Amino acid sequence: MARVSVLGASGYAGAIAAMLIHRHPFFELAHVTARSEAGARLDDIHPRTRVPMELESWDPDAQGDVDAALVCWPHRAAAPAVAALRERGARVVDLSADFRLRDRGIYEDWYGEHGAPAHFGTGVYGLPELTRDAVRGADLVANPGCYPTAALLGLAPLARAGVIGDVVIDAKSGVSGAGRAATATTHFIAADENVSPYKIEGHRHTPEIEQELAALGAELTITFTPHLLPLAQGELVSCYVTPARELGEGELAELYDDAYAAEPFVELRDGPVGVIDVRDTNYCRISVLQDPRTGRVIVFSAIDNLWKGAASQAVQNLNLMFGLPETEGIR
Amino acid sequence: MARVSVLGASGYAGAIAAMLIHRHPFFELAHVTARSEAGARLDDIHPRTRVPMELESWDPDAQGDVDAALVCWPHRAAAPAVAALRERGARVVDLSADFRLRDRGIYEDWYGEHGAPAHFGTGVYGLPELTRDAVRGADLVANPGCYPTAALLGLAPLARAGVIGDVVIDAKSGVSGAGRAATATTHFIAADENVSPYKIEGHRHTPEIEQELAALGAELTITFTPHLLPLAQGELVSCYVTPARELGEGELAELYDDAYAAEPFVELRDGPVGVIDVRDTNYCRISVLQDPRTGRVIVFSAIDNLWKGAASQAVQNLNLMFGLPETEGIR
Amino acid sequence: MARVSVLGASGYAGAIAAMLIHRHPFFELAHVTARSEAGARLDDIHPRTRVPMELESWDPDAQGDVDAALVCWPHRAAAPAVAALRERGARVVDLSADFRLRDRGIYEDWYGEHGAPAHFGTGVYGLPELTRDAVRGADLVANPGCYPTAALLGLAPLARAGVIGDVVIDAKSGVSGAGRAATATTHFIAADENVSPYKIEGHRHTPEIEQELAALGAELTITFTPHLLPLAQGELVSCYVTPARELGEGELAELYDDAYAAEPFVELRDGPVGVIDVRDTNYCRISVLQDPRTGRVIVFSAIDNLWKGAASQAVQNLNLMFGLPETEGIR
Amino acid sequence: MARVSVLGASGYAGAIAAMLIHRHPFFELAHVTARSEAGARLDDIHPRTRVPMELESWDPDAQGDVDAALVCWPHRAAAPAVAALRERGARVVDLSADFRLRDRGIYEDWYGEHGAPAHFGTGVYGLPELTRDAVRGADLVANPGCYPTAALLGLAPLARAGVIGDVVIDAKSGVSGAGRAATATTHFIAADENVSPYKIEGHRHTPEIEQELAALGAELTITFTPHLLPLAQGELVSCYVTPARELGEGELAELYDDAYAAEPFVELRDGPVGVIDVRDTNYCRISVLQDPRTGRVIVFSAIDNLWKGAASQAVQNLNLMFGLPETEGIR
Repeated sequence: MARVSVLGASGYAGAIAAMLIHRHPFFELAHVTARSEAGARLDDIHPRTRVPMELESWDPDAQGDVDAALVCWPHRAAAPAVAALRERGARVVDLSADFRLRDRGIYEDWYGEHGAPAHFGTGVYGLPELTRDAVRGADLVANPGCYPTAALLGLAPLARAGVIGDVVIDAKSGVSGAGRAATATTHFIAADENVSPYKIEGHRHTPEIEQELAALGAELTITFTPHLLPLAQGELVSCYVTPARELGEGELAELYDDAYAAEPFVELRDGPVGVIDVRDTNYCRISVLQDPRTGRVIVFSAIDNLWKGAASQAVQNLNLMFGLPETEGIR
Repeated sequence: MARVSVLGASGYAGAIAAMLIHRHPFFELAHVTARSEAGARLDDIHPRTRVPMELESWDPDAQGDVDAALVCWPHRAAAPAVAALRERGARVVDLSADFRLRDRGIYEDWYGEHGAPAHFGTGVYGLPELTRDAVRGADLVANPGCYPTAALLGLAPLARAGVIGDVVIDAKSGVSGAGRAATATTHFIAADENVSPYKIEGHRHTPEIEQELAALGAELTITFTPHLLPLAQGELVSCYVTPARELGEGELAELYDDAYAAEPFVELRDGPVGVIDVRDTNYCRISVLQDPRTGRVIVFSAIDNLWKGAASQAVQNLNLMFGLPETEGIR
Repeated sequence: MARVSVLGASGYAGAIAAMLIHRHPFFELAHVTARSEAGARLDDIHPRTRVPMELESWDPDAQGDVDAALVCWPHRAAAPAVAALRERGARVVDLSADFRLRDRGIYEDWYGEHGAPAHFGTGVYGLPELTRDAVRGADLVANPGCYPTAALLGLAPLARAGVIGDVVIDAKSGVSGAGRAATATTHFIAADENVSPYKIEGHRHTPEIEQELAALGAELTITFTPHLLPLAQGELVSCYVTPARELGEGELAELYDDAYAAEPFVELRDGPVGVIDVRDTNYCRISVLQDPRTGRVIVFSAIDNLWKGAASQAVQNLNLMFGLPETEGIR
Repeated sequence: MARVSVLGASGYAGAIAAMLIHRHPFFELAHVTARSEAGARLDDIHPRTRVPMELESWDPDAQGDVDAALVCWPHRAAAPAVAALRERGARVVDLSADFRLRDRGIYEDWYGEHGAPAHFGTGVYGLPELTRDAVRGADLVANPGCYPTAALLGLAPLARAGVIGDVVIDAKSGVSGAGRAATATTHFIAADENVSPYKIEGHRHTPEIEQELAALGAELTITFTPHLLPLAQGELVSCYVTPARELGEGELAELYDDAYAAEPFVELRDGPVGVIDVRDTNYCRISVLQDPRTGRVIVFSAIDNLWKGAASQAVQNLNLMFGLPETEGIR
């Protein structure tokens, strides 16, 4: 048994992460922390977790003395906590953006000053289906953003095969993606019966997607626009790819089969995919087709933004870091 | 007062059309027809209309003896009714697809055999903001599809200015767009908390959008993919345009201002637009921006699919055909 | 034309009130006020109103110099504004609870100290279907709460006829009833896919319902429990009445017909009633039946909490106060 | 390992039952059956089950040769299948109403002729928290209806203690309770943004609740009215009890603690309970209070209608029948 703390367990992703660790056959949930809600019980705030533990204020000495930690804090706040955990020898999966980007200037452009500069760029980008081997040996894993998770899984086979000439990513997300803060955006009356784009001037997941596409061989500037939908959890990205080259007969299906047929958490589908089918799971459902009229390749990729897009993927990474079967506790 | 029949008033769009005619200061609602629900009262089936009239079976002699008719029947079934109405001297706005396309082969490819070949191609495409003058003199107006309405209003200024090199249209619609039939798709449990693309192999509104873009000067093959959202009414199209040429400083805003500043039913907005803001109205809200990173022009266009996308636009057309103020009875 | 100010037009009910006055054939919307959002345009905050007016800070001298005002402020804050308006000769419909209760002690028990004691109890309770005559001559009308509106319209025929021995009122409301403040309760994730009772220890509308039932002849202590539903607007009250006496053959239907057959805004229905059928209207739909197994009389009453339960009923009252047709501008 | 068939696995409850058996550490899912969808794979029709098995047409010889079966068929159709299974020696949990009622006349009044008269009344009513001992020895268990489950768990402590003088049960359910058939009722547009009562002339769960209340010592005629809400899964019953006698100081809390403190699937709560907190679980959340103004006892009881109200409760019963820990595979 490895002892694991979950920092920021009062947020949506943190609560699910705590629940998954609590139920996990190998990990033991050591501590759950929260800021303003310290003192409350997690199952009072998030009943569905059924985790009967008290939320503590973050104290590196108290909660850092563990084998591992999942850090579910906002970007910039996360970095110092990650640093403190590493100094105490804990392996860390960080769910914030603080260790995802490898270019310091790009990080600062999109997020501002980094909270633990000495550690910048020292993590492994943890999208297991694409970076599994690196995750295995890592002591710090940067858990991908929700949109990058869906987009990269959808596009990776094309990126590796040199097919992406240009891509438009139209993303749709449920309201939980906007976090637990009560705001004008998350008010029921604002989201109900509505759909609208948001952050249309630029969303922070853009450089993250570009960085990892480049790592896969597709160096390009993407168009990425998220939309908010009236549902709680779920994320669909519709990717419109202008091919850089002609695709051979059957090549498209082959690319995806080769990439994903053996993957435990990727479900290739013919026809439409819907987010309800991956709700509360670590699965990613992908459908790909080539429009015969335009030659464009269209990829649909659906995940649960709080699970595969955050909490369950973090556990998937942690499983890998501890040499456990990747599916342990999340299937 | 002109007497107006509404054929197919038991469907969602037909019911709203009947309501709008019923409340209209100049038109008098003469007859409402339905097939399986003939004999029932419209306000029993659609209480929100508050139209206390009995639905009749369609009989050209009984309901065709009017000054005008709105035909809210499915494509192929509509054409013969339109023909019968015209023969009796009634002006017609047809809400089906039967008179929208001008190329007979394309119609047959997407819809099958036409129901009144002698009349094929004899209507005017009635998107008032773009074809107002032709509508004024017409005796048969083809009311645009919901997606074409939103997409064409969003793209017209770019099409006319030769800006559209290529375009991806990602469309999102509420469930009413799938009609009143109880099906696996319209079941609450299928749509609730879900989002998925549909008709990904090709949606019939594609050739309609292409035809009208060409009429505006933009001859191209488009990519168009609709998605189903868990909401009742509302449609957002997100258009991703690869410019055919560079845009001058301020040109984009100017193109849209020139096109729409004086339009009573187009609302130009900076920033995101949401469908709830045009719900139950004839408005179309449009927002346009150029992504500085890619140069791509992105247009968001939001309508109520049953109103501006169908019923209220039909009344707007009818107003024009009768020389009335265009906004009469729909503002 | 009478000039009318709407105070608190940035709230949900206030915005609709402003919209209704703005479109009203006899009233002219003179001023709209708001606290934190003064300076913004009403149609930017509430696009569906399409009222292109700037929200002002409340200043009795600037906005009190009108023929009438609708005060859409919270209880306790409303009273002083009402007093200031009356002193300037304006007729007032107050949408808060400040002038609904006639017993000062009861008011203080449920709401605390009154904000304008000299005016306490000087208003007329304005539920037109029940108190129309008193409203006609009034210069201050207390607009009923949303739950009392639905419950009293549903129960009045029974109360007057001495039928109510005991009553349980189980009420269900959409989220707009909780107001525009972003709170844990109004967060999309809290309300979506959920239903729960609230204020189970006692809701402030209880004494209001009891007071008006007593005025109709039914002096009793009621059980009233509201529930929050995942929808925006709409309120259904299910009233379970233990009869105080036997009902004659056909008496039940007769009681309701006598009370409401001529009412323009009450719709008697056989069978279930749903809130969607009265959405965005001033209608109240009522269905009543006697359970043959228990003898219990069950009444269902559905309104839109923001319309008949607040804004449109305020205009209905204002119409009466100005001697206008009661339905003017709200049908 | 015991081999278990699930009959009617294409319905909502049947699919979850199949999923739970499929994942169960002791049971092996032997067969899944369906009528019109035989031949399809269960995980194609209900992806969330992730059960990669083919649906078969019901054939007693093929699927009856098992240790046990869960029958998820409609009432009247279920009985003959149950009979066939018993004749082959299989233990059965029947999720229909066919074996719940013990009075043949009452069954026929509400459901019509019974489909296997020789077996009528030979099952054990399987609400484990109330009838655990009888379930242990049973070979046929009648799984309770969803409303009876929530209502009886909520009322049992009062019924046993002789507290129930009279009771009104106002029930609220999500749309999945109406089944998978695409109908006017289950159409998204009918349910969305709506709430309405249904079966107001009498719902079949009424006699079932009365029968089991009587078994607990509370012989009375109840008032029971269900309402349909715009959500997928979840059921809240609000029970308004007129006490038959005075309650002692602290007695209420004691009654519920005594009944449920040790129950693994009942969660007693102070304050409101919401259905989202028991979604996708076998839990029942109960809150009880006495209104000091009226003396009325109010009980709120929340379950997931497809889980504790159907599928997971069936597995709970099966666990008991096989002498397994009651929580096996459902926690």
